[in-house]
Amino acid sequence: MTKKKLDHRALARQISEIENDRDAAETTLAKLYRDPDNVQVIGITGPPGAGKSTLADCVIGKLRAEGKTVAVVAVDPSSPFTGGAILGDRIRMSAHADDPGVFIRSMGSRGSLGGLAHATFDVVNLLRSSGFDAVIVETVGVGQSEIDVLAVADTVVLTLVPGLGDDVQALKAGIMEIADIFVINKADRDGKERLVAEIRMILELNRDRFDWVPPICETVATEQRGIDGLMEQVALHAAYVRDHREAVRRPKLARQLEKMAADRISRDILAILGNGDRFTAWMDDIVAGRKNPYQVMQEIGNYISVRKEA
Amino acid sequence: MTKKKLDHRALARQISEIENDRDAAETTLAKLYRDPDNVQVIGITGPPGAGKSTLADCVIGKLRAEGKTVAVVAVDPSSPFTGGAILGDRIRMSAHADDPGVFIRSMGSRGSLGGLAHATFDVVNLLRSSGFDAVIVETVGVGQSEIDVLAVADTVVLTLVPGLGDDVQALKAGIMEIADIFVINKADRDGKERLVAEIRMILELNRDRFDWVPPICETVATEQRGIDGLMEQVALHAAYVRDHREAVRRPKLARQLEKMAADRISRDILAILGNGDRFTAWMDDIVAGRKNPYQVMQEIGNYISVRKEA
Repeated sequence: MTKKKLDHRALARQISEIENDRDAAETTLAKLYRDPDNVQVIGITGPPGAGKSTLADCVIGKLRAEGKTVAVVAVDPSSPFTGGAILGDRIRMSAHADDPGVFIRSMGSRGSLGGLAHATFDVVNLLRSSGFDAVIVETVGVGQSEIDVLAVADTVVLTLVPGLGDDVQALKAGIMEIADIFVINKADRDGKERLVAEIRMILELNRDRFDWVPPICETVATEQRGIDGLMEQVALHAAYVRDHREAVRRPKLARQLEKMAADRISRDILAILGNGDRFTAWMDDIVAGRKNPYQVMQEIGNYISVRKEA
Repeated sequence: MTKKKLDHRALARQISEIENDRDAAETTLAKLYRDPDNVQVIGITGPPGAGKSTLADCVIGKLRAEGKTVAVVAVDPSSPFTGGAILGDRIRMSAHADDPGVFIRSMGSRGSLGGLAHATFDVVNLLRSSGFDAVIVETVGVGQSEIDVLAVADTVVLTLVPGLGDDVQALKAGIMEIADIFVINKADRDGKERLVAEIRMILELNRDRFDWVPPICETVATEQRGIDGLMEQVALHAAYVRDHREAVRRPKLARQLEKMAADRISRDILAILGNGDRFTAWMDDIVAGRKNPYQVMQEIGNYISVRKEA
């Protein structure tokens, strides 16, 4: 495949356009969208403090050493008012910020209504279509929003650290089914054996659910330890995805499509209702105690009709 | 106010009904919904490992000592396949699991499409209407989904711990604007002074945005230390909410209503499109490469029409 020349400035402008104008994004991406099977989108997620950024930097370094171009999307579910400033700082600290073969973009909050997941799909899908060899999506957290966002990734790397406390049980459960590779970072810390045993137990209990059995890699990212082992698993999973393309991609695409459709539909409709001051009137009724939110829900259906055939 | 007698079994049945049948939930809650201003809904959130469950147990204990009845909703954004089992274990470990004045419920994932936030609103709104003096909502995580869920809380307690690492910057930013009270739990650990200084700096930078300036409480929940100071702030914030009811509640109610409306609208429409096998056909087109997801988005609008007046 011929590689497109990467024009960072043009890409940044294109991304700003699709972030700021959803209709334009749809038109642009309907035209540009490509899904070449030699482009791997790698999601890196995990709880705060797991060292995801350092790990991502190591992964970028290895991909670059193989001569691959890399795009990085850092998703920060932060408030609109602090925006991407904090991730911006983190990006400037990246060892690869000045490498022309690496393109880095942060995504701040797009407000409510699940817009952040949709906006991230748009940016990642644009980058997937733009000639990069790999796209890395880094998310902060382990909740439902991260699970939604990572529907866009081919390979999900879940980063954990020893000694996270009781909550590690809950978060492993939440993100378990989307993890393709487990990384135990800071593996020189106490509690590693216990964490390995817990992950193994959960994998064992759910053995029948897996065709690809997620491996457990141990790393100390700050010292570059264990990264080769991780990269080997990342490459193995890429091969697995190529060989099982429909089985792996279809459920992920379905989750993306549902999320995008739900976001688009509700945004369109709320915009129409909001323009007609209907939403404000409902809020006035609720605050004044004339109606409750559930009575309003019962009214909303009256405003919408769906055709079964378009 | 006369207190209703609390019938745990009837409540549990009612909750199962509204969880399993959204239409029934709407009808039931349109009828039962009450919003008495002497009921405080307290949200407790924070990153994994912050000790939220232990802290919640301390808060329950103090409320019970004041003779108040308490309902607890534990929200776990986990997968459908492990479900609420893990939170179930945690609930059984609660010191208050057998107290008839305490009602505990866990919420597992309701699948995709933002359903968990909507389902949590339903359950909390039911409990708010059912005669409890206080309702506690505990969420695991610090992402957008937790911010969504906590729109149902009058008072949000953000629990942090010293030494969370770099990511604490990002998560504080994300949840900053919804935190009414900061708790530094495990305050006997190294790094407390730095965390206090960081929170103070962020509060100072955003001073103009606050009418209520969030206090910072220091606790060691495992040793019951600092809980009285926290309860004092919880009571002060309850009084503040009562005195500024419309200013505090309106934006929270608006966020709930938008989330509920978006969820209801998109669910209804996707159900109709799904029943007509339209969704499956689109997925087939995408997987086969005949269409891309953005071309499908462009088609979706053709199926829906919105009336400006119902």
